[in-house]
Amino acid sequence: MSVVQWVYEYEQGNASMKSLLGGKGANLAQMWNIGLPVPPGFILTTEACKAYWEDRAGLLDAVWPQVRQSMKRMESATGKTFGGKENPLLVSVRSGAPVSMPGMMDTILNLGLNGDTVEALAAASGDERFALDSYRRFIQMYSDVVLELEHGDFEFCLAQAKKEQGCRHDHELSPEMLRKLVGQYLQMVQSKGKVFPEDPWEQLRLAIEAVFRSWNTPRAVTYRQIQRIPDDLGTAVSVVSMVYGNLGNDCGTGVCFTRNPATGERELFGEFLLNAQGEDVVAGIRTPRPIQELKADMPEVHGELLRLTSLLEQHYKDMQDIEFTVERGKLYLLQTRNGKRTAKAAVRVAVDMVRENLIPKDEAVRRVTPENVEQLLHPQLDPNLPMNVLARGLPASPGAAVGKVVFQADEAEKLGRSGEAVILVRPETTPDDIHGLFAAQGVLTSHGGMTSHAAVVARGLGKPCVSGCEALDIDLQRETIRVGDRIIRKHEILTLDGSRGLVVLGSLPLIQPSFTDDFRELLSFADEIAALEVWANGDTPEDAKRAREFGARGIGLCRTEHMFMQAERLPVMQEMVAATDREERVAALNRLKVMQKDDFLGIFEAMQGFPVTVRLLDPPLHEFLPKVPELQGRIAELEKKGQGDAPEAEHLRRLARKAESLRESNPMLGFRGCRLGIIYPEIYEMQVEAIFEAAGELVARGVSVHPDIMMPLVGTLEEMKRLRAMVGEIAEREEKRTGVRVPYLVGTMIELPRAALVAGQLAQEAEFFSFGTNDLTQTTFGYSRDDAEGKFLAEYVRLHVLPENPFHVLDRDGVGRLLEIAVQDGRGTRPAIQIGICGEHGGNPSSIAFCHKLGLKYVSCSPFRVPVARLSAALSVLGLLS
Amino acid sequence: MSVVQWVYEYEQGNASMKSLLGGKGANLAQMWNIGLPVPPGFILTTEACKAYWEDRAGLLDAVWPQVRQSMKRMESATGKTFGGKENPLLVSVRSGAPVSMPGMMDTILNLGLNGDTVEALAAASGDERFALDSYRRFIQMYSDVVLELEHGDFEFCLAQAKKEQGCRHDHELSPEMLRKLVGQYLQMVQSKGKVFPEDPWEQLRLAIEAVFRSWNTPRAVTYRQIQRIPDDLGTAVSVVSMVYGNLGNDCGTGVCFTRNPATGERELFGEFLLNAQGEDVVAGIRTPRPIQELKADMPEVHGELLRLTSLLEQHYKDMQDIEFTVERGKLYLLQTRNGKRTAKAAVRVAVDMVRENLIPKDEAVRRVTPENVEQLLHPQLDPNLPMNVLARGLPASPGAAVGKVVFQADEAEKLGRSGEAVILVRPETTPDDIHGLFAAQGVLTSHGGMTSHAAVVARGLGKPCVSGCEALDIDLQRETIRVGDRIIRKHEILTLDGSRGLVVLGSLPLIQPSFTDDFRELLSFADEIAALEVWANGDTPEDAKRAREFGARGIGLCRTEHMFMQAERLPVMQEMVAATDREERVAALNRLKVMQKDDFLGIFEAMQGFPVTVRLLDPPLHEFLPKVPELQGRIAELEKKGQGDAPEAEHLRRLARKAESLRESNPMLGFRGCRLGIIYPEIYEMQVEAIFEAAGELVARGVSVHPDIMMPLVGTLEEMKRLRAMVGEIAEREEKRTGVRVPYLVGTMIELPRAALVAGQLAQEAEFFSFGTNDLTQTTFGYSRDDAEGKFLAEYVRLHVLPENPFHVLDRDGVGRLLEIAVQDGRGTRPAIQIGICGEHGGNPSSIAFCHKLGLKYVSCSPFRVPVARLSAALSVLGLLS
Repeated sequence: MSVVQWVYEYEQGNASMKSLLGGKGANLAQMWNIGLPVPPGFILTTEACKAYWEDRAGLLDAVWPQVRQSMKRMESATGKTFGGKENPLLVSVRSGAPVSMPGMMDTILNLGLNGDTVEALAAASGDERFALDSYRRFIQMYSDVVLELEHGDFEFCLAQAKKEQGCRHDHELSPEMLRKLVGQYLQMVQSKGKVFPEDPWEQLRLAIEAVFRSWNTPRAVTYRQIQRIPDDLGTAVSVVSMVYGNLGNDCGTGVCFTRNPATGERELFGEFLLNAQGEDVVAGIRTPRPIQELKADMPEVHGELLRLTSLLEQHYKDMQDIEFTVERGKLYLLQTRNGKRTAKAAVRVAVDMVRENLIPKDEAVRRVTPENVEQLLHPQLDPNLPMNVLARGLPASPGAAVGKVVFQADEAEKLGRSGEAVILVRPETTPDDIHGLFAAQGVLTSHGGMTSHAAVVARGLGKPCVSGCEALDIDLQRETIRVGDRIIRKHEILTLDGSRGLVVLGSLPLIQPSFTDDFRELLSFADEIAALEVWANGDTPEDAKRAREFGARGIGLCRTEHMFMQAERLPVMQEMVAATDREERVAALNRLKVMQKDDFLGIFEAMQGFPVTVRLLDPPLHEFLPKVPELQGRIAELEKKGQGDAPEAEHLRRLARKAESLRESNPMLGFRGCRLGIIYPEIYEMQVEAIFEAAGELVARGVSVHPDIMMPLVGTLEEMKRLRAMVGEIAEREEKRTGVRVPYLVGTMIELPRAALVAGQLAQEAEFFSFGTNDLTQTTFGYSRDDAEGKFLAEYVRLHVLPENPFHVLDRDGVGRLLEIAVQDGRGTRPAIQIGICGEHGGNPSSIAFCHKLGLKYVSCSPFRVPVARLSAALSVLGLLS
Repeated sequence: MSVVQWVYEYEQGNASMKSLLGGKGANLAQMWNIGLPVPPGFILTTEACKAYWEDRAGLLDAVWPQVRQSMKRMESATGKTFGGKENPLLVSVRSGAPVSMPGMMDTILNLGLNGDTVEALAAASGDERFALDSYRRFIQMYSDVVLELEHGDFEFCLAQAKKEQGCRHDHELSPEMLRKLVGQYLQMVQSKGKVFPEDPWEQLRLAIEAVFRSWNTPRAVTYRQIQRIPDDLGTAVSVVSMVYGNLGNDCGTGVCFTRNPATGERELFGEFLLNAQGEDVVAGIRTPRPIQELKADMPEVHGELLRLTSLLEQHYKDMQDIEFTVERGKLYLLQTRNGKRTAKAAVRVAVDMVRENLIPKDEAVRRVTPENVEQLLHPQLDPNLPMNVLARGLPASPGAAVGKVVFQADEAEKLGRSGEAVILVRPETTPDDIHGLFAAQGVLTSHGGMTSHAAVVARGLGKPCVSGCEALDIDLQRETIRVGDRIIRKHEILTLDGSRGLVVLGSLPLIQPSFTDDFRELLSFADEIAALEVWANGDTPEDAKRAREFGARGIGLCRTEHMFMQAERLPVMQEMVAATDREERVAALNRLKVMQKDDFLGIFEAMQGFPVTVRLLDPPLHEFLPKVPELQGRIAELEKKGQGDAPEAEHLRRLARKAESLRESNPMLGFRGCRLGIIYPEIYEMQVEAIFEAAGELVARGVSVHPDIMMPLVGTLEEMKRLRAMVGEIAEREEKRTGVRVPYLVGTMIELPRAALVAGQLAQEAEFFSFGTNDLTQTTFGYSRDDAEGKFLAEYVRLHVLPENPFHVLDRDGVGRLLEIAVQDGRGTRPAIQIGICGEHGGNPSSIAFCHKLGLKYVSCSPFRVPVARLSAALSVLGLLS
């Protein structure tokens, strides 16, 4: 056995050797080898673990000389002595399998401490409490994982100690009390029949064995079974020298990013504390200082950090997030990883790295997620707005939010679920508050920095966060915030500006963010990759302009009914609806036509060169009338005034009669869509005339216009045949009248199961299909969206009867199968048929990936979601969405 | 050419020689050859026609000697002489192609008449008017079709003559006027430059040529093109001697059936008139006498008819409908065909013929249509009911009807369409009235017999008809009926009993007919053939009993909610619905369970040995509450009485609040079906417990019970999984408790498009599928049945946008495709899965044929439609339904 190399030095490893050195070990080796100042250490291989299980004692004996040799190297590299009484070398011992695997022994810190070395550590750090606390923790951890004693017994002693001293937190325990506790701990170990090894070498040997042993704990074995991880991989063991940032003012600790994770700017960004340990920064107990100030305190360390920035990015090709410790002036990197970043930063970093020739364009696109893009489109406060700032904190996560003050995560969740906007306010947050953060519009904490729990989570969720707002005195019992002499109570309204760290009393208006050039550039990379086009749904010239601005290449759904809902038009529409014969109806329609034509002129002009899909009138006619009880109320009022015979009252009665006759028990499945156009042909004729008159005028003026005329709610070939013939006749008539030829298509929504099932027939007449997946989801599931979403559907998602809300994420098994049938059969009849989707799913990344797989021509979504869709279309090609 | 045989005698032909002798010719030959007394005649072959078109003059020359020879035979057979001045032989000349083909020359009657023979005919018949009128008609017809003169010119002369004589009808013209008219006709022929042949042989030769010529008229050519009939078939020509039933009192004419076409009884059934022509019977101008009376007037003829009955049925294997004429004591059959019959007769005749060994069982089943069966289940009057009979007419079509009196077919259609029951009252009906007959519940005429237009059509439609009710004086102008001194006006209510020929003023209750033994036997033949089982939908023990009576082999849909709608149960149900927590709900449910268990005991016992498919609660809960406005009204009333604080008011307010909170904009797509069972598990648990408790008790008593527990509105595998697990747990618990094992299945309705699309998944958990095609049609088309049927859907059918109402006839392209998918995928997962249909389509013949094609196990329909479904299932196997 003695010829085998069981122990590897960093120099002998690299990132590709995970199966031999484990994930952690391989990474440490890699960092070392690219020149990063990693604390000295070495790795026992997975082969050693496997050998251990064949011959325990034999392996340990064979390994030991190699461990001792590597420890010697570590002593010389650190200038410390393992078990030394002056400058003791302490180490961490960690397990590290080739794949991440919970259930094994994780970490023992501060190994090497005993009655002697603890005094040496106290002397070296000048902090007796720190040294004793480290010792206490070491004994506790070691007794648990190596000696396999009950964890709870130690916790009980600890609690007793705090009670005795009358304090609440561990860190408040006095050195005296800690010393007493250490004694109790050691006594307890003895009383359980175990021996706590005083000899650091014995400590080390037993710890290594414990790691090997932990490979086969029941938890680890079960985990491997479930995850189908082979049992013979084995785990490596890394032994790394401890470094301390709290041994004096030439020490410190910090975290920093190679670029600004909020804006993406290329600058060192982070925080540090002098004479502190890493956990002091993360826990938010002391508020750390900006990394820039390090330059004054430790110019060499700061310079070294700047040097490392470029080294790291050259190597990892991405922005890095590093943890560092300075021990007596010497910088150590404890960890480096790709840095979490805001959406804005993600885009900026990706685009900058393309410019810096660090990465190619498709890699830039891979670096940005659809969630990033959504965050970029989050609301902001107008920076020029005069505002009464209540307090200032750290700008921990960008964007702005308005909501009711809430102090408990549970309440945030409850109110949030019922649709209320809330701001979660806490001194600091913990993982227990996650559900509240999820439900809240924004988060406000009085403690913690840019890397505190609240800040990190909020950035991940794309929600605004103001952290470390120390002017706030938060009383969780009374549920109040005191700011100076001002008291803010639960449910008062606050506005947060997470981009600038501002807290404002009351509600301020939010504005949509504008498109940055970086963002535009990134999306242009995406467009180069994407197969799907992205179109937008829009009903007005303003919508059309916004759609173009966001890069939409067409209008996939222009809902003509919205045009009739405008105040000055509604009365004419109501006349049309209440008409008792064709003549009355036509008279009202002629007036509406003038208005519709105007709308079309505006939209067609805004979209010139791009197709505009105009959907003819869709909703049931009663939607244009006031509700019957409202009409009855107004009539009763007039009667009360003695004006029961006035023309106004007569008019209202007529509307009421009509509304009554149009009433339906299930309007979703009623007299709407093309059924209107078939039974009252004059309505659709008016709309088609308005389209061709508008388009004709623009074509005559040299504007390129492409109307796609879309029939809603078609379910049968016969409907499609008649409606197409109607459009053809009007188009021909207009061309004869004006001499202008307008290029156009006639097609249909596929929004009924039957339309999908007979798509092969419909394609005989339809030149395009547009999937209306909102309605299609309603009829396929038999869910009325209006009724279900707030009621049983929410419950269904909560109870996991449904994995997701099918109105948000396209249901592939059901609705998706209909889409597949329609695409296949439609193309069978008309190979070149244009097919897209215009339901809200057109803006949902997973649904877009499905549309990409179906080979659709385009997805159409709300203008604000166009950027998300453009990116998602590219990610679908890259296989990052499925 | 002379060697070819162009002319065939009857003896030389038979029914299989249609291509040579034409359809008519072949049938005449067949009748002759089985010994029927057909008037002598012969046939020119289709080959002659083809040869004519190759060499016109040549063919006619070649044919002529053969024609003359056959005419000689005819003279000797009839004892008459062609062109003879005493007993002239007259003939009819008809075209007859191998396939029925309009557009050719049809018929010339009375050929052989001229100035001399007409006098001979007058002398022989003793009826100068008849002879002259026959001559007039012959000239007019011959001039039109042979000489190709304008038909209108003759009609003009005829009208002038009537005007001159001051009469309205043709038959009122005097012999003098007819003689004058004949002169005018002949003069007109001459003035047009044509010669009307006096010589009968010349008449015959030209008529035969005209038939050949008519093969290529533009109308005939176009018809062949459209129908894809080859141009080279040619037409045959039949020449048959005329016989007259109006040459004296030893003459007569009549129609008769070999069995009673109303009841199917084996008896000669028909009508005759002495000294009359066939058209007198059909036109309803004289009311004919029952065939039984012929025995007294013409015993030999009557005997001969009886002899022929058996001859005909032995040969044709079906009830025959014959036209006969007696000329001077000699009986001739002019036509025989399968007789139209009532449903009752169809069944009786079919079953009798099986008993008589005339036909096999499957042929009996073929002879009855689903429409027949529907008619058999039509309403009847209680024969024991005392009634005030207004008038008696002929029992022309069985069944009874109640409706408003209407005199115009248009009005009948209008009212009928708006859902009103009407009785169409006419002196007699014509084909112009068909739409009115369609729309009416029944028909009443003052003239015409059992074979009049009204009677024949009504029988075909399965509607009651009373014809020849001569006591009625119908004034179409004033729209009144006078009966004696009684006046009945438009829109008064009448009741008709078409089975007994009764007319009753006012509305009488109608009762359902009972099942005859014949009917039962026929359906048992059907069951032997059918592959599909027929089950029934039924919610009560009474339904179950009726279902068994009609032959259902299971309950395919037992709707448990109907049990809760009963007066004494509804309040408990309302308590359950209005419950604010689980405990309240469970308390009410426990009380409901006792009631449900009782229901199940009754149904299971009635269906013992057969499966009972119990559907758990389906409708939205608000259906069990009064409507909100009603509740508000009742609350307001109590408040007015000063009882606003009474417990009653409080209770109503609670119901109103609940009703308000349960209100949905599209309840069809809302919180119903298994969604209730998932969100409030205690509801379904109660129902399943009631099922198992009831079934367990019966099993313990030795009753064979097979509950199939059906989940409504399932759309996802997860729903099915949870609900199946719930049933399994309860079944196990009950078995443990009682020690009794109940065999059961758990399955699902397939009534949502998604259920069909993921049927492969559902079959993992579901042991049976039942297609709920009512709801499936609603969601597949996006039609709310409640809203659509009275509104746009009726319009859609009227405008032919839809070929049929898809709630009546299953839509194969859309809904049917979903069924195919579900069957295929369901069997893919679970090959033995039990699949049936329980929507209303389960009782529709065409839909049943589709279910047969899909290979379903059963169709389930309302008990009253079970017989229709049993027959349809058999006809599907026989390929008679598709």
